[in-house]
Amino acid sequence: MLTLYHAPRCRSTRIVALLDELGARDQVSVEVVGIPRQDGSGGRDPRNPHPEGKVPLLVHDGVEIWESTAIALYLTELFPEAGLGRPVGAPDRGRLLSWLAWYGDVLEPVMVMTYAQLDHPALRATFRGMEEAGHRLSAALSGAPYLMGADYTVADLICASAFQFAPQYAPDAPGLADWVARCADRPAQHRAQRYDAELLEAAGG
Amino acid sequence: MLTLYHAPRCRSTRIVALLDELGARDQVSVEVVGIPRQDGSGGRDPRNPHPEGKVPLLVHDGVEIWESTAIALYLTELFPEAGLGRPVGAPDRGRLLSWLAWYGDVLEPVMVMTYAQLDHPALRATFRGMEEAGHRLSAALSGAPYLMGADYTVADLICASAFQFAPQYAPDAPGLADWVARCADRPAQHRAQRYDAELLEAAGG
Ligand SMILES: N[C@@H](CCC(=O)N[C@@H](CS)C(=O)NCC(=O)O)C(=O)O
Ligand SMILES: N[C@@H](CCC(=O)N[C@@H](CS)C(=O)NCC(=O)O)C(=O)O
Repeated sequence: MLTLYHAPRCRSTRIVALLDELGARDQVSVEVVGIPRQDGSGGRDPRNPHPEGKVPLLVHDGVEIWESTAIALYLTELFPEAGLGRPVGAPDRGRLLSWLAWYGDVLEPVMVMTYAQLDHPALRATFRGMEEAGHRLSAALSGAPYLMGADYTVADLICASAFQFAPQYAPDAPGLADWVARCADRPAQHRAQRYDAELLEAAGG
Repeated sequence: MLTLYHAPRCRSTRIVALLDELGARDQVSVEVVGIPRQDGSGGRDPRNPHPEGKVPLLVHDGVEIWESTAIALYLTELFPEAGLGRPVGAPDRGRLLSWLAWYGDVLEPVMVMTYAQLDHPALRATFRGMEEAGHRLSAALSGAPYLMGADYTVADLICASAFQFAPQYAPDAPGLADWVARCADRPAQHRAQRYDAELLEAAGG
């Protein structure tokens, strides 16, 4: 059994979209939980088993899987038919793993630094900044519509999600805005947004 | 062909140790490169193809693989016989992926915050702190010698490396110090340390 713990308009929304892309939306039960929101509303939800109280969390036959990039990779392995990942042994699997890791290791810390308007030599030495992150994405996209080449993959879904969530922080790098728009304009993304809007409306928010 | 770009006593040392654990040390050619060191010495090395000038970088038949956790996962998939990973389809593969992602997404940012003595509500909200990180590891280790249970895996190699590198920041959480010691005391780790010492000596440092 597969259960996704989800809070609307949050980092788990991309997992809802991914399940849709994978054709697996009806194989996963979604539990909507609360989280502490940046505006001070909400709070830790005792119904959320995530050890840090965060979303997303995926539970598969009792095994907890946390961190968006781990969940995303796991789901592309569980539902390989959609071709959103790269199987073990594919020549460019390492590249896909790298983009997923880079999202969490670099792009997300840089996002947090940016919205917190936090600059510090130690952060910069380790993570660099938004401009450098933009350069990397831009270089990958210079000859291709997607990070892995001609086809949309889970690497695009995860990396572009940062800028869908906070478009105001997207760096001005060649090709970046078009790529984000391309990734945001997929039917699965629209359906995930609609689902979140319905959840929020039902909750009276 | 497999090439590892490495700088001694750095984040790539754990990849040297991993190759040894995997029995794959002689299948990978190691290129020693320079990096800017925290003490101001060194600098970006033009011989290092990493787009951010960092180590580790693995190049496999022309494909660049970056970020330690991506490299580590990739190598355990390439050399599965050593049993350091969990194959696709294993019931606890998701847990292994989660620990690897968590290292880069949470533990490494928290390490950087700690050594930079940087506390900020936005960093804390996203990453929490060293105490919370210690709790998570400690909880996982409460009934087992290693993060995945009875056997040492790449999840231990990666997560424990943070504290081998900077033992002074290890939080005081039950079982943590013993686990770090267990992970550091493996023959492959001793050989990787010796290799680094020889490289530094040969470089006259
Ligand atoms: N690195 C984690 C971050 C998860 C995360 O911080 N999620 C936010 C929701 S957008 C959350 O649950 N916040 C509530 C909290 O931190 O207590 C991932 O990508 O899964
Ligand atoms: N998240 C990356 C970090 C890599 C990293 O920052 N490596 C350091 C060496 S310990 C480096 O190359 N620093 C030089 C630089 O940032 O220019 C990973 O784990 O692979």
